[in-house]
Amino acid sequence: MENEKKKDTFPRIQASASSLRTSNPIREVVDRIDTSQMNKNKPMIPLSIGDPTVFGNLNACEEAIQAVVEVTKSCQANGYPKAVGMVEARSAVAQEFSTCHCPLTAADVILTSGCSHALQLCLEVLLEPGKNVLIPNPGFPLYKTICDYIGAEARSYALLPEKEWQIDLEHLRSLIDSNTKAILINNPSNPCGAVYPESHLKEILEIAQVAKLPIIADEIYHQIVFPGNESIPIASLSQVVPVLSVGGLAKRFLVPGWRLGWIIIHDRHNALAQVREGLERLSTLIMGANSLVQAALPNIMKNVSNSWHLSVLRSLHMQANYSYERLSHMVGLEPVMPQGSMYIMVGIQVTKFVDIESDIDFSQKLLNEESVFVLPGQCFGAKNYFRIVFCAPMDKLAEAYNRMSEFCTRHVRTVQ
Amino acid sequence: MENEKKKDTFPRIQASASSLRTSNPIREVVDRIDTSQMNKNKPMIPLSIGDPTVFGNLNACEEAIQAVVEVTKSCQANGYPKAVGMVEARSAVAQEFSTCHCPLTAADVILTSGCSHALQLCLEVLLEPGKNVLIPNPGFPLYKTICDYIGAEARSYALLPEKEWQIDLEHLRSLIDSNTKAILINNPSNPCGAVYPESHLKEILEIAQVAKLPIIADEIYHQIVFPGNESIPIASLSQVVPVLSVGGLAKRFLVPGWRLGWIIIHDRHNALAQVREGLERLSTLIMGANSLVQAALPNIMKNVSNSWHLSVLRSLHMQANYSYERLSHMVGLEPVMPQGSMYIMVGIQVTKFVDIESDIDFSQKLLNEESVFVLPGQCFGAKNYFRIVFCAPMDKLAEAYNRMSEFCTRHVRTVQ
Repeated sequence: MENEKKKDTFPRIQASASSLRTSNPIREVVDRIDTSQMNKNKPMIPLSIGDPTVFGNLNACEEAIQAVVEVTKSCQANGYPKAVGMVEARSAVAQEFSTCHCPLTAADVILTSGCSHALQLCLEVLLEPGKNVLIPNPGFPLYKTICDYIGAEARSYALLPEKEWQIDLEHLRSLIDSNTKAILINNPSNPCGAVYPESHLKEILEIAQVAKLPIIADEIYHQIVFPGNESIPIASLSQVVPVLSVGGLAKRFLVPGWRLGWIIIHDRHNALAQVREGLERLSTLIMGANSLVQAALPNIMKNVSNSWHLSVLRSLHMQANYSYERLSHMVGLEPVMPQGSMYIMVGIQVTKFVDIESDIDFSQKLLNEESVFVLPGQCFGAKNYFRIVFCAPMDKLAEAYNRMSEFCTRHVRTVQ
Repeated sequence: MENEKKKDTFPRIQASASSLRTSNPIREVVDRIDTSQMNKNKPMIPLSIGDPTVFGNLNACEEAIQAVVEVTKSCQANGYPKAVGMVEARSAVAQEFSTCHCPLTAADVILTSGCSHALQLCLEVLLEPGKNVLIPNPGFPLYKTICDYIGAEARSYALLPEKEWQIDLEHLRSLIDSNTKAILINNPSNPCGAVYPESHLKEILEIAQVAKLPIIADEIYHQIVFPGNESIPIASLSQVVPVLSVGGLAKRFLVPGWRLGWIIIHDRHNALAQVREGLERLSTLIMGANSLVQAALPNIMKNVSNSWHLSVLRSLHMQANYSYERLSHMVGLEPVMPQGSMYIMVGIQVTKFVDIESDIDFSQKLLNEESVFVLPGQCFGAKNYFRIVFCAPMDKLAEAYNRMSEFCTRHVRTVQ
């Protein structure tokens, strides 16, 4: 240690394996798309970003804004909340999600820095290197990102487009082995827009019960469902299967940047006692969500009216219907009508096109020629699909679909 | 998988080893203290909580509050920031910490969900199981908590109370081995209140340079220093040693609950290229800090006046002086005068007391008899010390020290 070659250039410092294997599939696919080739004559319409606030047509409710403003002005909520969150805020979540079969108290709720943090804690508390969790395919890429970081396996089960993206239950069952620690479901879902009926949720519970596996339920799109569908938290359908349900304000209240998420621990006969302890321990690492939003949460939940939520839903439903209608008339495309959320998946019949080789190729050429950006399905593990976020205002959607329609017509193989 | 014993009680679900080994030493020590025995006739005075907002005498600056209120009302910052943070906010931090020798840009700053999150990312990007980082003793317990979680070793180097808690450099040097990945320093420090002079920081840099180790500098108390001391970011003193400096709004702006922290990457000749990549990857897991506070950050930094900062400092300095003065007149106690931060460490000469066996015993009996709560030094790895947070208003401090003085007199061994 005592050598004196101090003037040497400092050697490159190595980053840990866990940090370097933390990868975001969206980033990796999108990084392969060259945005410099974009058609400069047409203004960009990004239908790629899963953030409902991007276009300014979907705004947070005035009462939610007011609740945060009041807390901020009061100067009474600037201190550290408990690591698991403020008890009043946890109570508000518990009350919102309690049912007579599933009573909850503040002790069953952990507040987190966004739903991503909630997912990270749930996967970290159940998984270790060498273990696996079953995740949906197509699915939200963060599940795999977190598993990569942990060094655990994210094992994909198939969703069936022909059955409105319900789970291929046989496939799910076949993937379970002695290293499986949990089944993760996403309902309502990103990127598919699926909303599972009670009967399907019961089939999933049945599999979890037989295999003695807990369920991680990503329910961040809870209640964002279109008429004719019901948003059912899976925990409400079982008295036996332990469920960690994750959610947050992000989507339903149109405030993803506020980073307020939660884990609801639906314990059964103390099966999750150790998991609860592990979650509480993990929550001490970064001390959870912003205190202003935590303190405002009870008033946000109380004061944001049902009619506001319904007006957002009506808008999303109209955008979904319009998107489906337009897309189903384009040659070579097969949209799957969403039942909820903010997304529509569109199949690409590559054989019908002259020069479209894949979803990545489709997205790249659509961007180059029409300045419309959609995410290739490979971001979600779905080759030859693409995902549209249909939150844009109707005039932007109309313009995007006009361009997309021309694009398809231009590239389609003419019948001999 | 097909057996049908569905009505069985669900088996206990195991939590991961990493979650269960994540432990907060403060929690563990404090949990052993029985608060039910507290003297009900005297109102509790907690001098234990490292949160300056607890008593209501130290309040956030009106301009900071106003900046967040304006952003919130604008409804323009509810969306997802980039995982590494909004560029305007990162620029504001870069500008604040740039010096002519150490120019910084937004690309050198990553915003995090509080300084705890910043520390977690820095330790995760440099460490792996089997590797070690050198940390101060006495020191902030979160360093070890994060290392336990990672499965890496937090190896403690001694701070010397007789040298105003400067580092025992020989000891530091002796701990370095081939598995050492970084030296973590905390300046100004919690729990000691030490502020290192330039000469000492240069000695630390010298050791890092010879050993080719990067420095993680926990500088969350930057600029909270009393007259006669200078707050010097260690990165400003070296053109060679790579430094990850962590900080945030929590302490200097009196808003710990807002959870806005940062990592400043002081790279040298690209030595941190891979580390930078690792940090960016890790930041995608939970997507960083609350968007309202991020968007308000440039105005917070611009509009909160130096005179406001100075008035907070004057108050803290007065509280520190008063605490030191009172404590040095109590039999059996040896306070070490702090040079900054919000803490004072007090040595307990256990042999001078009849029935005080340790710092934990002292804290327990002081709580039982006088309803004054101080944290035992063992929370920070310092047996037979205790830590006082001197943020309470002067009348509360006076009352606490009156009680403590009576307590010491009552328990002291009378000279034969």
